[in-house]
Amino acid sequence: MNAITDLPYTVTRQRDVVDALRKLLPERCVLFNDEDIRPYECDGLAAYRQMPMVVALPDTEAQLVQILQLCRDMQLPIVPRGAGTGLSGGAMPIADGLVLSTAKLNRIIKVDPVARTAVVQPGVRNLAISDAAAPHNLYYAPDPSSQIACTIGGNVAENSGGVHCLKYGLTVHNVMRVRVVTIDGDIIELGGAALDAPGLDLLAVFIGSEGMLGIVTEVTVRLIPKPQRACVIMASFDDVVKGGNAVADVIGAGIIPAGLEMMDRTSSRMVEPFVKAGYDIDAAAILLCESDGTPEEVSEEIAHMTAILTASGATKISVSGSDEERLRFWSGRKNAFPAAGRISPDYYCMDGTIPRKRLADVLLRIEAMESKYGLRCANVFHAGDGNLHPLILFDANKPGEFHQAEAFGAEILELCVEVGGTITGEHGVGIEKINSMCVQYSPQEREAFFAVKRAFDTAFLLNPDKAIPSLHRCAEYGKMHVQRGQLKFPDLPRF
Amino acid sequence: MNAITDLPYTVTRQRDVVDALRKLLPERCVLFNDEDIRPYECDGLAAYRQMPMVVALPDTEAQLVQILQLCRDMQLPIVPRGAGTGLSGGAMPIADGLVLSTAKLNRIIKVDPVARTAVVQPGVRNLAISDAAAPHNLYYAPDPSSQIACTIGGNVAENSGGVHCLKYGLTVHNVMRVRVVTIDGDIIELGGAALDAPGLDLLAVFIGSEGMLGIVTEVTVRLIPKPQRACVIMASFDDVVKGGNAVADVIGAGIIPAGLEMMDRTSSRMVEPFVKAGYDIDAAAILLCESDGTPEEVSEEIAHMTAILTASGATKISVSGSDEERLRFWSGRKNAFPAAGRISPDYYCMDGTIPRKRLADVLLRIEAMESKYGLRCANVFHAGDGNLHPLILFDANKPGEFHQAEAFGAEILELCVEVGGTITGEHGVGIEKINSMCVQYSPQEREAFFAVKRAFDTAFLLNPDKAIPSLHRCAEYGKMHVQRGQLKFPDLPRF
Repeated sequence: MNAITDLPYTVTRQRDVVDALRKLLPERCVLFNDEDIRPYECDGLAAYRQMPMVVALPDTEAQLVQILQLCRDMQLPIVPRGAGTGLSGGAMPIADGLVLSTAKLNRIIKVDPVARTAVVQPGVRNLAISDAAAPHNLYYAPDPSSQIACTIGGNVAENSGGVHCLKYGLTVHNVMRVRVVTIDGDIIELGGAALDAPGLDLLAVFIGSEGMLGIVTEVTVRLIPKPQRACVIMASFDDVVKGGNAVADVIGAGIIPAGLEMMDRTSSRMVEPFVKAGYDIDAAAILLCESDGTPEEVSEEIAHMTAILTASGATKISVSGSDEERLRFWSGRKNAFPAAGRISPDYYCMDGTIPRKRLADVLLRIEAMESKYGLRCANVFHAGDGNLHPLILFDANKPGEFHQAEAFGAEILELCVEVGGTITGEHGVGIEKINSMCVQYSPQEREAFFAVKRAFDTAFLLNPDKAIPSLHRCAEYGKMHVQRGQLKFPDLPRF
Repeated sequence: MNAITDLPYTVTRQRDVVDALRKLLPERCVLFNDEDIRPYECDGLAAYRQMPMVVALPDTEAQLVQILQLCRDMQLPIVPRGAGTGLSGGAMPIADGLVLSTAKLNRIIKVDPVARTAVVQPGVRNLAISDAAAPHNLYYAPDPSSQIACTIGGNVAENSGGVHCLKYGLTVHNVMRVRVVTIDGDIIELGGAALDAPGLDLLAVFIGSEGMLGIVTEVTVRLIPKPQRACVIMASFDDVVKGGNAVADVIGAGIIPAGLEMMDRTSSRMVEPFVKAGYDIDAAAILLCESDGTPEEVSEEIAHMTAILTASGATKISVSGSDEERLRFWSGRKNAFPAAGRISPDYYCMDGTIPRKRLADVLLRIEAMESKYGLRCANVFHAGDGNLHPLILFDANKPGEFHQAEAFGAEILELCVEVGGTITGEHGVGIEKINSMCVQYSPQEREAFFAVKRAFDTAFLLNPDKAIPSLHRCAEYGKMHVQRGQLKFPDLPRF
């Protein structure tokens, strides 16, 4: 009777979803044309792409509640999205799903200089919080490299770190409370001002849950006083093993540097022409060790670290003489990823952690893998907390190279687990490392994750197939087929 | 046909359970006679008592797995128990249930001075960990007042703190990994050596879960180097409000003291004759402010804090001249609870938190409540983190006094929530504060807790009716009847 019924299901489904969303949201907040939704097809892990069915950008929490209820009622999978700077494909869309962007929820609700807190909406950029707190001489500590662009909502989803998290902690250590909308549209508040909230610590569970449990609509962060002084040492080593051991020596001496980063020669040579940070490009490895605090504390700690680094075999040591020089030393480290993009057509950034004492050992094994896979790897690390960021350089236009890079990356992650570390330090599991979760955890442990996921999202609508692999997926691991630019899921039943 | 069938159900049920347990455990590990199980009828919250059906004390993890599977199969509720020093009735037995004591799982498995970790079984005493680490000049930081007796398993269940948690954190900040047996007998490991473990942060959920999610059989704790020097200031104030404001001033100056404790005059007068700590018993309040670190850091911080306390109106300041004197200053604070027992037939220790800036205000309101309820209240605080421990003094033999003390305590907790704090800082909710959870959380938030509880324990066998109140219970709150020494539950359906 009706010609419309002859349309493919995907088309009628999209039309139904868009019609329903438009009843809840202004027209400009619902995107579905190809050109409008193209920017949402991937996050920072650009090798994995998928166009969504529809993108919703609520202006208010009330709209967000209604969107979630609609998705639940229509059984529409939801992929939450902050700024899309994530590096593990956590915000990669689902073909028959909705992307829920928190970009328009970008108000700084309150900065309280006495309580040293800020209450912000999820779409507020990480650096914008520190900017708002700056008049009170306060700042928000976690500083991922993407801090100019990334949002606090995304930071909460990924439990983001940064170069200063060794001393100041990850997102979970700097967020006091979140306000969450559940898939049923309920609003709950988790955490609080006290050191410990009564009941189960669901705040910690939400932080780093990669959008699988609910959508955060308000975040109360801790602000800390800007240190009076900060100073960074740049130390050169003629051998990566010596550099790795120097990291262990600094920490072993009981020092907690404000930052402790390592870059190998490939990295410093990659960065230097681009950033002109003043790096010693002849050194096999350079360490950046920052101290902050009162001028007396900084002087004492810099002297102490200088002595340790010298004893550990540093061939050259420079100490930043001004804050400009300090920021210049850091600029190289912070721009390592874009620099990789300048010397190689493509790069694949890994994010594993290892026990600090295994740093030197792991570096040598990664070097051996470079020959095995025929690809170069630049190594930058949050060395102080054992968080590696090997950047595997490849050219996606050369047949097989992406595949080789993926295999190289997977082997690095397996090595991390083998030496007692983990498959992700701060970038999350997303879609990229979901198979590596099979290596990291036992079936019983993965089932514990699922049990909690199920507790909040019975129908598995919130970012399904991310972060936790099903038993089935782990059984299939190794046989799964990945095509450049488009991850093809085998047609598996979900969980 | 069989006379045994004429026995009351409780008797045959106990016999069946004991028979089944004896197939799994040596005879000495299964207690069920009145004289044997009497010591288990309460924990440190002695006003709440209940004899259990049976007590099991496994020697090994394998036995513990079998006990849990048996309980699941027989639908037998389980109350886990460490040393029984808890103060919220978390280990109060259930009449038709089993008490699972971890007392015999008391091996220190490994102390690793390089990684600065210790792996211990749950029955190891808190202080025994530091004793084992002492030869390496390391220690385990959280130090609840009961640290001589309390076990790490109990500390994990309650997320215990102590006088140094302001600087060194609670149990959750000092435990890296736990090994857990689930109600199904599965063994899972949560957490790890890295700053952040991939997947959901179930480690944080287990810590402080009051035995509701699983039984911990192995705990990996972080050890930290003993500070080179520690020194404590004792400051007197002629007004509690000034003392409360001085706390805010110290923290406001950006100092994180190793300990920052406050005692009012009732407390210092209660403690001094007993401990002879050298307290100023004429002062309305005394503050203890500890600094630790290198000798230079300590000297600088003590000078800084002395200046702040003087500016805040301290009438007298003493600085410990030796480690003996420092420990003597602390001994009064650490013995406040036993001292209360010497001056009053009974006392009721509360454990709320409040924002630091409300300290002075809350103290005045508690003072007003003393008149209202006709009971004295001694106030000791972990002032630095806003954790109050009002000790309500009463005589249970005087009709109505226990009831008055309970009402007084409940009003203090409601005041804590009113000013933006919480109903428990470190003692847990247990059975004591379960009604106050109705004040702290919305029905949706409590449902989120239940959802996670259910995810691990569908049949609600693990410490049921503790920590999270049912919707029904909250609806009944205010009408529930409590009798001295025996809490009578209304005959409600569970959840």
